[in-house]
Amino acid sequence: MAANVQDVVMLVGDSLTQRGWEHGGFAQLLAEAYIRKLDVINRGLGGYQTDWAIPICEQIFAKQHEQHHVPQVKLLTIWYGANDAASAPNPQHVPIDRYKANLSHIINMVKSPTSAYYSPETRIILITPPPVNTKQWVGTPRVFETTRSYAEAVKEVGEKDNVPVADVWTKIFDAAGRSEEACEKYLNDGLHLTSDGYNIVFHAIMDIVARVYPELDPTWEAHGRMQTVFTLWDQVNVQNPRPSLMKRKVQL
Amino acid sequence: MAANVQDVVMLVGDSLTQRGWEHGGFAQLLAEAYIRKLDVINRGLGGYQTDWAIPICEQIFAKQHEQHHVPQVKLLTIWYGANDAASAPNPQHVPIDRYKANLSHIINMVKSPTSAYYSPETRIILITPPPVNTKQWVGTPRVFETTRSYAEAVKEVGEKDNVPVADVWTKIFDAAGRSEEACEKYLNDGLHLTSDGYNIVFHAIMDIVARVYPELDPTWEAHGRMQTVFTLWDQVNVQNPRPSLMKRKVQL
Repeated sequence: MAANVQDVVMLVGDSLTQRGWEHGGFAQLLAEAYIRKLDVINRGLGGYQTDWAIPICEQIFAKQHEQHHVPQVKLLTIWYGANDAASAPNPQHVPIDRYKANLSHIINMVKSPTSAYYSPETRIILITPPPVNTKQWVGTPRVFETTRSYAEAVKEVGEKDNVPVADVWTKIFDAAGRSEEACEKYLNDGLHLTSDGYNIVFHAIMDIVARVYPELDPTWEAHGRMQTVFTLWDQVNVQNPRPSLMKRKVQL
Repeated sequence: MAANVQDVVMLVGDSLTQRGWEHGGFAQLLAEAYIRKLDVINRGLGGYQTDWAIPICEQIFAKQHEQHHVPQVKLLTIWYGANDAASAPNPQHVPIDRYKANLSHIINMVKSPTSAYYSPETRIILITPPPVNTKQWVGTPRVFETTRSYAEAVKEVGEKDNVPVADVWTKIFDAAGRSEEACEKYLNDGLHLTSDGYNIVFHAIMDIVARVYPELDPTWEAHGRMQTVFTLWDQVNVQNPRPSLMKRKVQL
Protein backbone atom coordinates (compact mmCIF):
# COMPACT_ATOMS: atom_id res chain seq x y z
CA MET A 1 0.00 0.00 0.00
CA ALA A 2 2.89 2.35 -0.75
CA ALA A 3 1.65 4.78 -3.38
CA ASN A 4 4.11 5.92 -6.03
CA VAL A 5 5.10 9.31 -4.70
CA GLN A 6 8.78 9.67 -5.45
CA ASP A 7 10.77 8.47 -8.41
CA VAL A 8 13.98 6.62 -7.70
CA VAL A 9 17.72 6.25 -7.92
CA MET A 10 18.40 2.55 -8.55
CA LEU A 11 21.73 0.95 -7.72
CA VAL A 12 22.57 -2.36 -9.42
CA GLY A 13 25.73 -4.27 -8.71
CA ASP A 14 27.47 -6.74 -6.44
CA SER A 15 28.52 -6.63 -2.77
CA LEU A 16 30.06 -3.19 -3.23
CA THR A 17 26.56 -1.95 -3.97
CA GLN A 18 24.82 -4.20 -1.44
CA ARG A 19 27.00 -2.83 1.36
CA GLY A 20 26.14 0.69 0.28
CA TRP A 21 23.59 0.88 3.11
CA GLU A 22 26.30 0.70 5.76
CA HIS A 23 27.23 3.88 7.72
CA GLY A 24 28.86 6.16 5.19
CA GLY A 25 28.05 3.83 2.29
CA PHE A 26 27.17 5.41 -1.04
CA ALA A 27 23.51 4.35 -0.83
CA GLN A 28 23.19 6.03 2.56
CA LEU A 29 24.87 9.18 1.24
CA LEU A 30 22.65 9.25 -1.85
CA ALA A 31 19.50 8.68 0.24
CA GLU A 32 20.51 11.60 2.46
CA ALA A 33 21.26 13.80 -0.57
CA TYR A 34 17.95 12.97 -2.32
CA ILE A 35 15.73 12.99 0.80
CA ARG A 36 12.15 14.06 -0.07
CA LYS A 37 13.10 14.09 -3.78
CA LEU A 38 13.99 10.57 -4.96
CA ASP A 39 13.99 7.22 -3.13
CA VAL A 40 17.11 5.07 -3.33
CA ILE A 41 16.53 1.44 -4.28
CA ASN A 42 19.52 -0.82 -3.62
CA ARG A 43 19.64 -3.91 -5.85
CA GLY A 44 23.20 -4.90 -5.00
CA LEU A 45 23.71 -8.66 -4.81
CA GLY A 46 26.89 -9.83 -3.11
CA GLY A 47 29.03 -12.21 -5.16
CA TYR A 48 27.13 -11.64 -8.41
CA GLN A 49 28.76 -10.95 -11.75
CA THR A 50 27.41 -9.74 -15.08
CA ASP A 51 26.34 -13.15 -16.46
CA TRP A 52 23.98 -13.49 -13.51
CA ALA A 53 23.08 -9.81 -13.50
CA ILE A 54 21.23 -9.98 -16.82
CA PRO A 55 18.42 -12.28 -15.61
CA ILE A 56 18.24 -10.12 -12.46
CA CYS A 57 17.90 -6.90 -14.46
CA GLU A 58 15.11 -8.51 -16.50
CA GLN A 59 13.19 -8.77 -13.22
CA ILE A 60 14.07 -5.49 -11.53
CA PHE A 61 13.58 -3.24 -14.55
CA ALA A 62 9.93 -2.69 -15.45
CA LYS A 63 8.77 -3.48 -18.97
CA GLN A 64 7.32 -0.62 -20.98
CA HIS A 65 3.70 -1.69 -20.49
CA GLU A 66 4.24 -1.73 -16.70
CA GLN A 67 5.97 1.62 -16.52
CA HIS A 68 2.95 3.82 -15.87
CA HIS A 69 2.29 1.88 -12.65
CA VAL A 70 5.79 2.08 -11.18
CA PRO A 71 8.30 4.73 -10.12
CA GLN A 72 10.56 6.09 -12.85
CA VAL A 73 14.24 5.36 -12.43
CA LYS A 74 15.73 8.81 -12.85
CA LEU A 75 19.28 7.69 -12.13
CA LEU A 76 20.73 4.18 -12.51
CA THR A 77 24.21 3.18 -11.35
CA ILE A 78 25.70 0.00 -12.82
CA TRP A 79 28.66 -1.32 -10.84
CA TYR A 80 29.98 -4.79 -11.59
CA GLY A 81 33.42 -6.22 -12.15
CA ALA A 82 34.84 -6.98 -8.71
CA ASN A 83 33.63 -10.60 -9.12
CA ASP A 84 33.82 -10.87 -12.91
CA ALA A 85 37.55 -10.20 -12.39
CA ALA A 86 37.97 -13.20 -10.06
CA SER A 87 40.46 -15.67 -11.45
CA ALA A 88 39.23 -18.67 -13.47
CA PRO A 89 38.08 -21.37 -12.72
CA ASN A 90 36.16 -19.60 -9.93
CA PRO A 91 32.49 -19.66 -11.06
CA GLN A 92 32.31 -15.90 -10.52
CA HIS A 93 34.86 -15.31 -13.28
CA VAL A 94 33.55 -13.77 -16.49
CA PRO A 95 36.06 -13.33 -19.34
CA ILE A 96 36.70 -9.67 -20.07
CA ASP A 97 35.14 -9.60 -23.54
CA ARG A 98 31.94 -11.16 -22.23
CA TYR A 99 32.04 -8.76 -19.29
CA LYS A 100 32.07 -5.83 -21.70
CA ALA A 101 29.30 -7.35 -23.80
CA ASN A 102 27.21 -7.95 -20.67
CA LEU A 103 27.60 -4.35 -19.50
CA SER A 104 26.56 -3.13 -22.94
CA HIS A 105 23.61 -5.50 -22.86
CA ILE A 106 22.38 -4.06 -19.52
CA ILE A 107 22.86 -0.49 -20.77
CA ASN A 108 20.95 -1.22 -23.94
CA MET A 109 18.08 -2.82 -22.07
CA VAL A 110 17.44 0.73 -20.84
CA LYS A 111 18.68 2.85 -23.76
CA SER A 112 17.61 0.97 -26.86
CA PRO A 113 14.20 2.07 -28.22
CA THR A 114 13.58 -1.50 -29.35
CA SER A 115 14.11 -2.94 -25.85
CA ALA A 116 11.14 -4.15 -23.82
CA TYR A 117 12.70 -2.21 -20.91
CA TYR A 118 13.34 1.01 -22.83
CA SER A 119 13.28 3.93 -20.42
CA PRO A 120 14.39 7.19 -22.05
CA GLU A 121 14.08 9.22 -18.83
CA THR A 122 16.68 7.05 -17.05
CA ARG A 123 20.16 8.58 -16.73
CA ILE A 124 22.92 5.98 -16.38
CA ILE A 125 26.29 6.08 -14.63
CA LEU A 126 28.77 3.23 -14.96
CA ILE A 127 31.15 2.65 -12.05
CA THR A 128 34.51 0.90 -12.33
CA PRO A 129 35.49 -1.74 -9.78
CA PRO A 130 37.90 -0.33 -7.19
CA PRO A 131 41.50 -1.52 -6.99
CA VAL A 132 41.98 -4.79 -5.13
CA ASN A 133 44.63 -4.87 -2.42
CA THR A 134 45.92 -8.42 -2.74
CA LYS A 135 48.08 -7.95 0.38
CA GLN A 136 44.86 -7.64 2.42
CA TRP A 137 42.39 -9.85 0.59
CA VAL A 138 42.03 -13.47 1.75
CA GLY A 139 38.97 -14.59 -0.29
CA THR A 140 38.76 -16.21 -3.73
CA PRO A 141 41.85 -15.19 -5.71
CA ARG A 142 42.10 -11.74 -7.27
CA VAL A 143 44.98 -10.23 -9.26
CA PHE A 144 45.69 -6.51 -9.01
CA GLU A 145 46.40 -6.03 -12.73
CA THR A 146 43.33 -8.05 -13.74
CA THR A 147 40.97 -5.83 -11.80
CA ARG A 148 42.72 -2.82 -13.33
CA SER A 149 42.00 -4.20 -16.79
CA TYR A 150 38.33 -4.73 -15.89
CA ALA A 151 38.20 -1.12 -14.75
CA GLU A 152 39.69 -0.08 -18.11
CA ALA A 153 37.06 -2.22 -19.84
CA VAL A 154 34.27 -0.23 -18.14
CA LYS A 155 35.72 2.95 -19.55
CA GLU A 156 35.75 1.42 -23.04
CA VAL A 157 32.10 0.43 -22.69
CA GLY A 158 31.20 3.91 -21.44
CA GLU A 159 32.94 5.46 -24.43
CA LYS A 160 31.29 3.10 -26.91
CA ASP A 161 27.79 3.37 -25.42
CA ASN A 162 28.04 7.05 -24.52
CA VAL A 163 27.53 6.56 -20.77
CA PRO A 164 29.54 8.58 -18.22
CA VAL A 165 31.89 6.54 -16.02
CA ALA A 166 32.70 7.11 -12.36
CA ASP A 167 36.26 5.80 -12.46
CA VAL A 168 36.62 4.91 -8.81
CA TRP A 169 39.52 2.58 -9.62
CA THR A 170 41.65 5.56 -10.60
CA LYS A 171 40.27 7.93 -7.98
CA ILE A 172 40.99 5.50 -5.14
CA PHE A 173 44.40 4.47 -6.49
CA ASP A 174 45.35 8.13 -6.90
CA ALA A 175 44.08 8.97 -3.40
CA ALA A 176 46.31 6.15 -2.12
CA GLY A 177 49.35 7.70 -3.83
CA ARG A 178 49.26 4.93 -6.46
CA SER A 179 50.33 2.34 -3.87
CA GLU A 180 48.44 -0.95 -3.61
CA GLU A 181 49.13 -1.25 0.13
CA ALA A 182 48.04 2.30 0.82
CA CYS A 183 44.62 1.41 -0.60
CA GLU A 184 43.83 -0.10 2.80
CA LYS A 185 42.52 3.28 3.89
CA TYR A 186 39.76 2.77 1.32
CA LEU A 187 39.37 -1.03 1.40
CA ASN A 188 38.53 -2.73 4.68
CA ASP A 189 39.47 -6.23 3.55
CA GLY A 190 41.28 -5.55 0.28
CA LEU A 191 38.09 -5.77 -1.81
CA HIS A 192 35.22 -3.99 -0.04
CA LEU A 193 35.12 -0.29 0.71
CA THR A 194 35.52 1.65 3.92
CA SER A 195 33.47 4.80 4.43
CA ASP A 196 36.46 6.73 3.02
CA GLY A 197 36.23 4.59 -0.09
CA TYR A 198 32.48 5.07 -0.38
CA ASN A 199 32.93 8.79 0.04
CA ILE A 200 35.03 8.81 -3.13
CA VAL A 201 32.34 6.82 -4.94
CA PHE A 202 29.59 9.19 -3.78
CA HIS A 203 31.48 12.29 -4.87
CA ALA A 204 32.37 10.73 -8.22
CA ILE A 205 28.65 10.11 -8.82
CA MET A 206 27.62 13.59 -7.71
CA ASP A 207 30.32 15.18 -9.88
CA ILE A 208 28.89 13.40 -12.92
CA VAL A 209 25.36 14.41 -11.95
CA ALA A 210 26.40 18.07 -11.67
CA ARG A 211 28.25 18.02 -15.00
CA VAL A 212 26.28 15.64 -17.20
CA TYR A 213 22.84 15.36 -15.60
CA PRO A 214 22.39 18.77 -13.89
CA GLU A 215 18.60 18.32 -13.95
CA LEU A 216 19.15 15.69 -11.23
CA ASP A 217 21.42 17.79 -9.04
CA PRO A 218 19.80 17.80 -5.57
CA THR A 219 22.15 20.31 -3.95
CA TRP A 220 21.29 23.78 -2.76
CA GLU A 221 23.79 25.16 -5.27
CA ALA A 222 21.53 23.85 -8.03
CA HIS A 223 18.47 25.28 -6.28
CA GLY A 224 15.50 25.57 -8.54
CA ARG A 225 16.27 22.42 -10.52
CA MET A 226 14.81 19.98 -7.99
CA GLN A 227 12.31 20.68 -5.23
CA THR A 228 10.95 18.44 -2.49
CA VAL A 229 7.81 16.45 -3.35
CA PHE A 230 5.99 17.93 -0.37
CA THR A 231 6.44 21.56 0.54
CA LEU A 232 8.67 22.75 3.36
CA TRP A 233 6.73 23.10 6.61
CA ASP A 234 7.10 26.87 6.79
CA GLN A 235 5.42 27.14 3.38
CA VAL A 236 2.28 25.33 4.55
CA ASN A 237 -0.76 27.58 4.42
CA VAL A 238 -1.77 27.45 8.06
CA GLN A 239 -5.30 28.78 7.48
CA ASN A 240 -6.06 26.33 4.69
CA PRO A 241 -3.32 23.70 4.68
CA ARG A 242 -4.69 21.01 2.37
CA PRO A 243 -4.01 22.62 -1.05
CA SER A 244 -0.46 23.48 0.01
CA LEU A 245 0.15 19.84 1.01
CA MET A 246 -0.47 18.30 -2.40
CA LYS A 247 2.49 16.47 -3.92
CA ARG A 248 4.47 18.32 -6.56
CA LYS A 249 6.77 17.51 -9.45
CA VAL A 250 10.32 17.19 -8.17
CA GLN A 251 12.01 18.39 -11.34
CA LEU A 252 11.11 21.90 -12.40
CA MET B 1 11.02 1.55 -14.80
CA ALA B 2 11.64 0.09 -11.35
CA ALA B 3 9.68 -3.14 -11.19
CA ASN B 4 8.07 -4.06 -7.88
CA VAL B 5 10.54 -6.58 -6.55
CA GLN B 6 10.70 -5.97 -2.83
CA ASP B 7 7.99 -4.96 -0.42
CA VAL B 8 8.77 -2.11 1.94
CA VAL B 9 9.22 -0.69 5.38
CA MET B 10 7.65 2.78 5.34
CA LEU B 11 8.62 5.48 7.82
CA VAL B 12 6.21 8.38 8.30
CA GLY B 13 6.93 11.27 10.60
CA ASP B 14 8.66 14.61 11.01
CA SER B 15 12.32 15.69 10.97
CA LEU B 16 13.25 12.86 13.34
CA THR B 17 12.21 10.49 10.57
CA GLN B 18 13.53 12.65 7.70
CA ARG B 19 17.00 12.68 9.27
CA GLY B 20 16.89 8.91 9.59
CA TRP B 21 19.06 8.62 6.46
CA GLU B 22 22.03 10.24 8.20
CA HIS B 23 25.00 8.05 9.24
CA GLY B 24 23.69 5.84 12.02
CA GLY B 25 20.11 7.06 11.54
CA PHE B 26 17.32 4.55 12.04
CA ALA B 27 16.43 4.50 8.32
CA GLN B 28 20.02 3.62 7.45
CA LEU B 29 20.11 0.92 10.14
CA LEU B 30 16.78 -0.53 8.95
CA ALA B 31 17.92 -0.49 5.31
CA GLU B 32 21.07 -2.35 6.30
CA ALA B 33 19.08 -4.88 8.36
CA TYR B 34 16.51 -5.52 5.60
CA ILE B 35 18.95 -5.46 2.65
CA ARG B 36 17.74 -7.75 -0.18
CA LYS B 37 14.48 -8.35 1.74
CA LEU B 38 12.52 -5.11 2.09
CA ASP B 39 13.18 -1.59 0.79
CA VAL B 40 13.00 1.30 3.25
CA ILE B 41 10.90 4.26 2.13
CA ASN B 42 11.44 7.40 4.19
CA ARG B 43 8.45 9.75 4.21
CA GLY B 44 9.68 11.94 7.05
CA LEU B 45 8.83 15.62 6.59
CA GLY B 46 10.71 18.06 8.80
CA GLY B 47 8.53 20.42 10.81
CA TYR B 48 5.28 18.58 10.10
CA GLN B 49 2.71 17.67 12.74
CA THR B 50 -0.29 15.36 12.70
CA ASP B 51 -2.83 17.84 11.27
CA TRP B 52 -0.69 18.14 8.17
CA ALA B 53 0.25 14.46 8.20
CA ILE B 54 -3.26 13.29 7.37
CA PRO B 55 -3.40 14.84 3.86
CA ILE B 56 0.13 13.54 3.32
CA CYS B 57 -0.81 9.98 4.32
CA GLU B 58 -3.78 10.14 1.93
CA GLN B 59 -1.21 10.58 -0.85
CA ILE B 60 1.54 8.21 0.27
CA PHE B 61 -0.69 5.26 1.19
CA ALA B 62 -2.11 3.44 -1.82
CA LYS B 63 -5.85 3.00 -2.08
CA GLN B 64 -7.17 -0.54 -2.18
CA HIS B 65 -7.79 -0.55 -5.94
CA GLU B 66 -4.16 0.53 -6.53
CA GLN B 67 -2.62 -2.00 -4.17
CA HIS B 68 -1.95 -4.78 -6.66
CA HIS B 69 0.31 -2.45 -8.64
CA VAL B 70 2.45 -1.22 -5.75
CA PRO B 71 4.76 -2.65 -3.10
CA GLN B 72 3.10 -3.85 0.09
CA VAL B 73 4.04 -1.96 3.22
CA LYS B 74 4.99 -4.81 5.54
CA LEU B 75 6.05 -2.52 8.36
CA LEU B 76 4.94 1.06 9.01
CA THR B 77 6.43 3.32 11.68
CA ILE B 78 4.40 6.37 12.74
CA TRP B 79 6.45 8.94 14.61
CA TYR B 80 4.97 12.38 15.25
CA GLY B 81 4.73 14.61 18.27
CA ALA B 82 7.99 16.55 18.44
CA ASN B 83 6.27 19.42 16.59
CA ASP B 84 2.70 18.85 17.78
CA ALA B 85 4.16 19.49 21.26
CA ALA B 86 5.50 22.93 20.29
CA SER B 87 3.96 25.65 22.42
CA ALA B 88 0.93 27.57 21.12
CA PRO B 89 0.56 29.87 19.23
CA ASN B 90 3.29 28.32 17.07
CA PRO B 91 1.49 27.00 13.95
CA GLN B 92 3.10 23.60 14.52
CA HIS B 93 1.23 23.19 17.81
CA VAL B 94 -1.57 20.60 17.86
CA PRO B 95 -3.56 20.30 21.10
CA ILE B 96 -3.00 16.93 22.78
CA ASP B 97 -6.53 15.58 22.31
CA ARG B 98 -6.46 16.36 18.60
CA TYR B 99 -2.95 14.86 18.41
CA LYS B 100 -4.30 11.60 19.81
CA ALA B 101 -7.29 11.67 17.46
CA ASN B 102 -4.99 12.34 14.49
CA LEU B 103 -2.73 9.40 15.36
CA SER B 104 -5.78 7.15 15.67
CA HIS B 105 -7.02 8.45 12.33
CA ILE B 106 -3.74 7.54 10.60
CA ILE B 107 -3.71 4.10 12.23
CA ASN B 108 -7.29 3.45 11.18
CA MET B 109 -6.61 4.50 7.61
CA VAL B 110 -4.53 1.31 7.50
CA LYS B 111 -6.34 -0.95 9.97
CA SER B 112 -10.01 -0.28 9.41
CA PRO B 113 -11.65 -2.66 6.89
CA THR B 114 -13.92 0.20 5.79
CA SER B 115 -10.98 2.50 4.96
CA ALA B 116 -10.07 3.20 1.33
CA TYR B 117 -6.46 2.57 2.41
CA TYR B 118 -7.15 -0.67 4.31
CA SER B 119 -4.03 -2.81 4.27
CA PRO B 120 -4.31 -5.86 6.51
CA GLU B 121 -0.76 -7.07 5.77
CA THR B 122 0.76 -3.86 7.19
CA ARG B 123 2.22 -4.15 10.72
CA ILE B 124 2.33 -0.82 12.57
CA ILE B 125 4.69 0.51 15.23
CA LEU B 126 4.04 3.83 16.96
CA ILE B 127 7.06 5.76 18.22
CA THR B 128 6.95 8.32 21.01
CA PRO B 129 8.73 11.66 20.58
CA PRO B 130 12.06 11.70 22.42
CA PRO B 131 12.62 13.94 25.44
CA VAL B 132 13.46 17.53 24.59
CA ASN B 133 16.50 19.05 26.28
CA THR B 134 15.39 22.63 26.73
CA LYS B 135 18.88 23.57 27.97
CA GLN B 136 20.20 22.78 24.46
CA TRP B 137 17.32 23.67 22.17
CA VAL B 138 17.23 27.18 20.66
CA GLY B 139 14.37 26.81 18.12
CA THR B 140 10.63 27.42 18.52
CA PRO B 141 9.74 26.96 22.20
CA ARG B 142 9.39 23.49 23.70
CA VAL B 143 8.59 22.50 27.28
CA PHE B 144 10.09 19.34 28.75
CA GLU B 145 6.94 18.23 30.55
CA THR B 146 4.75 18.93 27.51
CA THR B 147 6.74 16.62 25.27
CA ARG B 148 6.60 14.02 28.04
CA SER B 149 2.81 14.27 28.05
CA TYR B 150 2.72 13.84 24.23
CA ALA B 151 4.85 10.73 24.63
CA GLU B 152 2.36 9.45 27.22
CA ALA B 153 -0.44 10.21 24.77
CA VAL B 154 1.17 7.94 22.15
CA LYS B 155 1.11 5.10 24.66
CA GLU B 156 -2.59 5.71 25.31
CA VAL B 157 -3.30 5.59 21.58
CA GLY B 158 -1.27 2.41 21.21
CA GLU B 159 -3.22 0.78 24.03
CA LYS B 160 -6.59 1.88 22.65
CA ASP B 161 -5.85 0.94 19.04
CA ASN B 162 -3.83 -2.18 19.87
CA VAL B 163 -0.62 -1.00 18.22
CA PRO B 164 2.77 -1.65 19.85
CA VAL B 165 4.69 1.45 20.94
CA ALA B 166 8.44 2.03 20.79
CA ASP B 167 8.68 4.29 23.82
CA VAL B 168 11.88 6.07 22.92
CA TRP B 169 11.01 8.93 25.29
CA THR B 170 11.44 6.60 28.26
CA LYS B 171 14.33 4.61 26.79
CA ILE B 172 16.37 7.73 26.09
CA PHE B 173 15.51 9.40 29.39
CA ASP B 174 16.43 6.21 31.25
CA ALA B 175 19.67 5.86 29.27
CA ALA B 176 20.48 9.45 30.31
CA GLY B 177 20.00 8.54 33.99
CA ARG B 178 16.67 10.45 34.00
CA SER B 179 18.52 13.78 33.68
CA GLU B 180 17.37 16.30 31.07
CA GLU B 181 20.91 17.67 30.61
CA ALA B 182 22.40 14.20 30.19
CA CYS B 183 20.10 13.68 27.21
CA GLU B 184 22.66 15.62 25.17
CA LYS B 185 24.42 12.34 24.42
CA TYR B 186 21.29 11.38 22.47
CA LEU B 187 20.14 14.80 21.20
CA ASN B 188 22.50 16.87 19.08
CA ASP B 189 20.58 20.14 19.46
CA GLY B 190 18.12 19.29 22.22
CA LEU B 191 15.45 18.01 19.80
CA HIS B 192 17.05 15.92 17.04
CA LEU B 193 18.84 12.65 17.62
CA THR B 194 22.51 11.73 17.52
CA SER B 195 23.51 8.32 16.21
CA ASP B 196 23.41 7.12 19.84
CA GLY B 197 19.82 8.30 20.02
CA TYR B 198 18.91 6.65 16.72
CA ASN B 199 20.54 3.46 17.89
CA ILE B 200 18.02 3.33 20.74
CA VAL B 201 15.18 3.93 18.28
CA PHE B 202 16.41 1.18 15.96
CA HIS B 203 16.73 -1.37 18.74
CA ALA B 204 13.32 -0.43 20.16
CA ILE B 205 11.81 -1.15 16.72
CA MET B 206 13.68 -4.41 16.26
CA ASP B 207 12.70 -5.58 19.77
CA ILE B 208 9.04 -5.07 18.86
CA VAL B 209 9.52 -6.84 15.54
CA ALA B 210 11.10 -9.84 17.29
CA ARG B 211 8.38 -10.02 19.95
CA VAL B 212 5.21 -8.92 18.18
CA TYR B 213 5.89 -9.36 14.46
CA PRO B 214 8.42 -12.22 14.35
CA GLU B 215 7.45 -12.98 10.73
CA LEU B 216 9.29 -9.74 9.87
CA ASP B 217 12.45 -10.50 11.85
CA PRO B 218 15.34 -10.18 9.37
CA THR B 219 18.10 -11.41 11.67
CA TRP B 220 20.07 -14.61 11.32
CA GLU B 221 18.68 -15.70 14.69
CA ALA B 222 15.24 -15.81 13.07
CA HIS B 223 16.68 -17.65 10.08
CA GLY B 224 14.06 -19.35 8.03
CA ARG B 225 11.42 -16.67 8.56
CA MET B 226 12.73 -14.27 5.90
CA GLN B 227 14.98 -15.03 2.96
CA THR B 228 16.57 -12.73 0.41
CA VAL B 229 14.49 -12.05 -2.74
CA PHE B 230 17.34 -13.27 -4.93
CA THR B 231 19.39 -16.29 -3.92
CA LEU B 232 22.84 -16.04 -2.36
CA TRP B 233 25.55 -16.20 -5.01
CA ASP B 234 26.97 -19.52 -3.84
CA GLN B 235 23.53 -21.09 -4.39
CA VAL B 236 23.41 -20.08 -8.06
CA ASN B 237 23.33 -23.12 -10.32
CA VAL B 238 26.48 -22.44 -12.33
CA GLN B 239 25.63 -24.88 -15.14
CA ASN B 240 22.10 -23.51 -15.63
CA PRO B 241 21.88 -20.25 -13.69
CA ARG B 242 18.64 -18.72 -14.93
CA PRO B 243 16.08 -20.79 -12.95
CA SER B 244 18.06 -20.28 -9.75
CA LEU B 245 18.02 -16.50 -10.32
CA MET B 246 14.24 -16.07 -10.29
CA LYS B 247 12.89 -13.83 -7.53
CA ARG B 248 11.41 -15.55 -4.50
CA LYS B 249 8.95 -14.76 -1.75
CA VAL B 250 10.78 -13.10 1.12
CA GLN B 251 8.55 -14.44 3.87
CA LEU B 252 8.46 -18.20 4.17
